[in-house]
Amino acid sequence: MKFNRPTVEVATAQKLLLRHVKELEAERVPLLQSFGRTLAEDVRATHPVPHFVKSGMDGYAVRAADIQGATPEQPAVLRVNQLIPCGAVPALPIGPGEAARIMTGAMLPDGADTVVMFEMTEERVVEKNDTGDTVPVNATSTNAMNTNATSTNATSTNATSMNATSNVNHVQETYAFIFKEVPLGRNVSQIGEEMSEGELLLERGRTIQAGEAALLATFGFSTVPVVRRPRVAILTTGSELLAVEDPLQPGKIRNSNRVMLAALVESAGAEVMALQSVPDDVDQARTIVRDWMTRADVVLTSGGVSVGDFDIMADLLDTWDGNLLFQKVEMRPGSVTSAAVRQGVFLCALSGNPGACFVGFELFVRPVLHALQARRNVLPAPFTARLRGDYPKANIYARYLRAKTTFADGMIYVEPAGQDRSSVTVSIKESDCLIVIPPGGGVSDGDLVTALRLPTAL
Amino acid sequence: MKFNRPTVEVATAQKLLLRHVKELEAERVPLLQSFGRTLAEDVRATHPVPHFVKSGMDGYAVRAADIQGATPEQPAVLRVNQLIPCGAVPALPIGPGEAARIMTGAMLPDGADTVVMFEMTEERVVEKNDTGDTVPVNATSTNAMNTNATSTNATSTNATSMNATSNVNHVQETYAFIFKEVPLGRNVSQIGEEMSEGELLLERGRTIQAGEAALLATFGFSTVPVVRRPRVAILTTGSELLAVEDPLQPGKIRNSNRVMLAALVESAGAEVMALQSVPDDVDQARTIVRDWMTRADVVLTSGGVSVGDFDIMADLLDTWDGNLLFQKVEMRPGSVTSAAVRQGVFLCALSGNPGACFVGFELFVRPVLHALQARRNVLPAPFTARLRGDYPKANIYARYLRAKTTFADGMIYVEPAGQDRSSVTVSIKESDCLIVIPPGGGVSDGDLVTALRLPTAL
Repeated sequence: MKFNRPTVEVATAQKLLLRHVKELEAERVPLLQSFGRTLAEDVRATHPVPHFVKSGMDGYAVRAADIQGATPEQPAVLRVNQLIPCGAVPALPIGPGEAARIMTGAMLPDGADTVVMFEMTEERVVEKNDTGDTVPVNATSTNAMNTNATSTNATSTNATSMNATSNVNHVQETYAFIFKEVPLGRNVSQIGEEMSEGELLLERGRTIQAGEAALLATFGFSTVPVVRRPRVAILTTGSELLAVEDPLQPGKIRNSNRVMLAALVESAGAEVMALQSVPDDVDQARTIVRDWMTRADVVLTSGGVSVGDFDIMADLLDTWDGNLLFQKVEMRPGSVTSAAVRQGVFLCALSGNPGACFVGFELFVRPVLHALQARRNVLPAPFTARLRGDYPKANIYARYLRAKTTFADGMIYVEPAGQDRSSVTVSIKESDCLIVIPPGGGVSDGDLVTALRLPTAL
Repeated sequence: MKFNRPTVEVATAQKLLLRHVKELEAERVPLLQSFGRTLAEDVRATHPVPHFVKSGMDGYAVRAADIQGATPEQPAVLRVNQLIPCGAVPALPIGPGEAARIMTGAMLPDGADTVVMFEMTEERVVEKNDTGDTVPVNATSTNAMNTNATSTNATSTNATSMNATSNVNHVQETYAFIFKEVPLGRNVSQIGEEMSEGELLLERGRTIQAGEAALLATFGFSTVPVVRRPRVAILTTGSELLAVEDPLQPGKIRNSNRVMLAALVESAGAEVMALQSVPDDVDQARTIVRDWMTRADVVLTSGGVSVGDFDIMADLLDTWDGNLLFQKVEMRPGSVTSAAVRQGVFLCALSGNPGACFVGFELFVRPVLHALQARRNVLPAPFTARLRGDYPKANIYARYLRAKTTFADGMIYVEPAGQDRSSVTVSIKESDCLIVIPPGGGVSDGDLVTALRLPTAL
């Protein structure tokens, strides 16, 4: 059985796996702990944004009709009847000839329809004497204003008293001189302008990053429904493997796949629940694998899937009593990658060669882990790019070549990341995509090739 | 001072900030907790990889000279003198006419120089009688072999006794029939073939992901020297801000910048040490900011930097007693973005508008956080792409437009992510780059534009 196993294409193997995915249940976590998690529900706007008519500038809320034709020579002069800080509810409406001093983000008073930014205005305090004549007492450019605004609870103040320097016979009033006409509605955000009530903002399956978190905060999600993280047991086979802390011994190497897989599993939003070595004994291995399959969502193994005498994962799968999905994939590296399902739990048996193990993870395991979390577009996204360098080698199977993407002059280039034999670990760290070399002939410098994006930061 | 502030270009502002960065100290963390952290030291290969001559296949270790001219009709017949599992030290050398059954990754025995994969061979047990004649007792294709290999401690066994079925007058011996000549050295990994001793593998400042973790494991780093995470205090200003859990009120909005900044800070590898609201009072704000600056590496504020009456961060910076780096940047959105340094600690005062806050973080704060961690290439990487859609609007300042990258037919396209006014939160989640629209004219569909990559997964 180890030899001449039936083969499946990569796409078929992926379908066989994804067909068995049941999305995991939801749980609620605090918003600040939800980053990187996957949203379990659609999120719709529960109110319009903004939910009140809002100033987009620091300036004066006015009636557009009052400032028509205003110029530096012929300014519109409006009586300032209040100051509206952010968070306040305006105390007064704006009547004809009136304006409100208003801050960015503050609620527009009734009657106002337009905001003129401070830079186009000047504020002047004017004294009214008993006869009703007005006498300017000073001209205060807002550019140099110091309002000594200290109260966070200030809602609005009548500008008449705001600058009063109590004089029995005189009343001071504040006027805004508007030096430029601006169109109706300028610098005003209407209700629902950014988001309408009921609008779908975030779909189930979306990963929560900064932008999503900001939206969740806007709509009051102090806790967030997220999909439970898949639990993954990582088992490694091979009696040549030393623990990382062990001194080197002849013929033995340190277990690097275990750590690599742990990093990959975590980068897929899943949780490593176990790291265990499996002895070169089929019966013991079967007991260990089965045991973890009662507790994990995915059991990942590395090594033991080839044709060697101690390749116990191959032997174990030959006698699998669950659903054996595939034991050989038409790909290099990692053709021996195997997968099985038992009672809804996945067993993904990856090659022990670090490069093949990495490719197997990205093509088969990450999609499963993402799908379990209800993410969308779980398969690595293909794109077309120009090859840098030649790859003359012909293959029987499609080859997935670890490579690096570069951009130049609006074009995308992909270049193999150094050595690419399956045993070579060093190129994994330089890879952000896999070039797909189809079965048959090689490819040459400048050829358009298909590559698959890896989620590594580009 | 709030008006007519001197402006600096974005690149100048970035330089002013980065000039003050002192990389943080190193600390050691367990390898399994080092993912996403930044390496504090160069890592060189402390031994060659492989550190012994190794088989790259399951097959027979042979002397190439012995299999010259082998064909299916005229196979080379070699006496199998041992089985070499992975992790074992071979018990015997290979003499002329001999072969070792060897597993992938196992140590090559002395005398052998080439490995022939099982698929090109057949193993046969032969009985020698008293006269010395050989009589084949069976022909066991390795394709169907069952070696019952159960002992993980097996080092090597003499094949003569391995398959012995005790007969006083007869001795059984195992022979490998090699049906194909393979070139000298095939399927053998030489010492240092992947990595030479002393080779620089990972540089200080590199982020530890799966590939890096595998290399660290290979060289025995059970703990890893990493740069300490920057500690960031996030302070938000604005009396219109409600807590996420608060019910909505007229004129007020929930504090979304705090959560967005927390997500961004964490995505930059830094640690959020405080989330605090700052009242609209300059003296109280100064006390709070100063207090956090004695404990944090970076104090981030959002809001209060514009020309409004309650823009206390602007007032605070006007009377700053440390090093004021800039108070206005030639950019949209976020021209009011400000920064200062005091005793080596950064104060980055971002706009309160979500879009401007996001852009300010990516252009100025993330580079500082990355540089504090000794990362390289900390500024967002520029690339050239074709614009999808028109952007006719002319600007005085350069505009940083949140946008989405797409690939098609080997070309890179960038498309503005919906609405881009600075107050619009919804487009942040769709952005993976910022299109840079230079000051002056607009740009049109199909134009080559410069964009900056954001670290969001593409």
